[in-house]
Amino acid sequence: MTLIDGLNWRHATKAYDTTKKVSQEDLNKIVEAARLAPSSSGLQPFRLAVIADQGIKNQLAEGAFNPECMRECSHVLVFAAWDEYTEERIDTIYNKTTDERDMPRGRFDRYTDMIKNMYAQQTSEEHFTHAAKQAYIAFGLALAQAAELRIDSTPAEGFDNEVVDNVLQLKEKGLRSVLVLYLGYRDEERDWLAPMKKVRNDIADFVLTY
Amino acid sequence: MTLIDGLNWRHATKAYDTTKKVSQEDLNKIVEAARLAPSSSGLQPFRLAVIADQGIKNQLAEGAFNPECMRECSHVLVFAAWDEYTEERIDTIYNKTTDERDMPRGRFDRYTDMIKNMYAQQTSEEHFTHAAKQAYIAFGLALAQAAELRIDSTPAEGFDNEVVDNVLQLKEKGLRSVLVLYLGYRDEERDWLAPMKKVRNDIADFVLTY
Repeated sequence: MTLIDGLNWRHATKAYDTTKKVSQEDLNKIVEAARLAPSSSGLQPFRLAVIADQGIKNQLAEGAFNPECMRECSHVLVFAAWDEYTEERIDTIYNKTTDERDMPRGRFDRYTDMIKNMYAQQTSEEHFTHAAKQAYIAFGLALAQAAELRIDSTPAEGFDNEVVDNVLQLKEKGLRSVLVLYLGYRDEERDWLAPMKKVRNDIADFVLTY
Repeated sequence: MTLIDGLNWRHATKAYDTTKKVSQEDLNKIVEAARLAPSSSGLQPFRLAVIADQGIKNQLAEGAFNPECMRECSHVLVFAAWDEYTEERIDTIYNKTTDERDMPRGRFDRYTDMIKNMYAQQTSEEHFTHAAKQAYIAFGLALAQAAELRIDSTPAEGFDNEVVDNVLQLKEKGLRSVLVLYLGYRDEERDWLAPMKKVRNDIADFVLTY
């Protein structure tokens, strides 16, 4: 089973079978793929909300552009990015890194001083935009992992962030919602996109060769 | 070979073996994984520059934060996003979609009118930021595909965009550079990161459960 097989298999599922649930084992693999994503300076400035609770899903549906998917899928993943880069947050992950590598804390001070100085000159909004981009990498990997397991998913970028942030109490955690990934098993009857051809730019248009 | 195996295997390679080249067959698979990435509204608002030419790589090195990787790796991928969303660009991909699905052109007019109207209210800079985010998804998939093939890579977000845009003449193509991915085979002696433990947030910190 190759990555390309999985990517060809998947599509943005439009309707879910409410009777089928993603197993905890499979869910753990999807989370793990997102956790292993690379990020700028290794800061990993995002977290992953995993929602199984039907009551929470119903509340989130109020802010969803596809509320049926939200209510009917097996699990919802919400990728949430740091609302800002702070010295403390940068130190926390670099201290963890040096500790796990049996290096003295401060080993990367020259580098972390540079990035702290860079972020100090930016607004929180710029921080968030940058952190959010990192979440897109993890989002792609989670979606690929779901496909490898032949679990259906729906990537969703458009939703009412305020509703999602409030329901999940993300602000209190220093986070803001970025992306939603619905997970589950398609309802063949209602998933109108399932039988349709996947359309992508031709290689000749997509690739610029130098 | 699972996705998670690949992600655990990979790291941001710090030095490349100049004597080893990525095969065309493998390169095609990496490009294909990026091409298959999902994107907002299916617009696929990015292209992939594939650079094998040593002269071009040397020129690009002037704008790289890690110029040795740029010069010494086998191939360089530059992910470049649309500089703006236009009605024509949206129509082009939707016409291709309906043509390939044997549907009448205009079948999705209600939807495309909505997104055209939405983008008309935004600046080109907002368009580019949004298009760039889509490229991050494809970037993650390309990197995962390289790992599946046990090809080393280095993701690079920081570089002098003006140099890269100029060398590749991206502006003339309506594109702006977003991300660079170096591809090749590590030089074990000089790749200082290769033996180090990969550090990620613990699951307990990474996941918020609802």
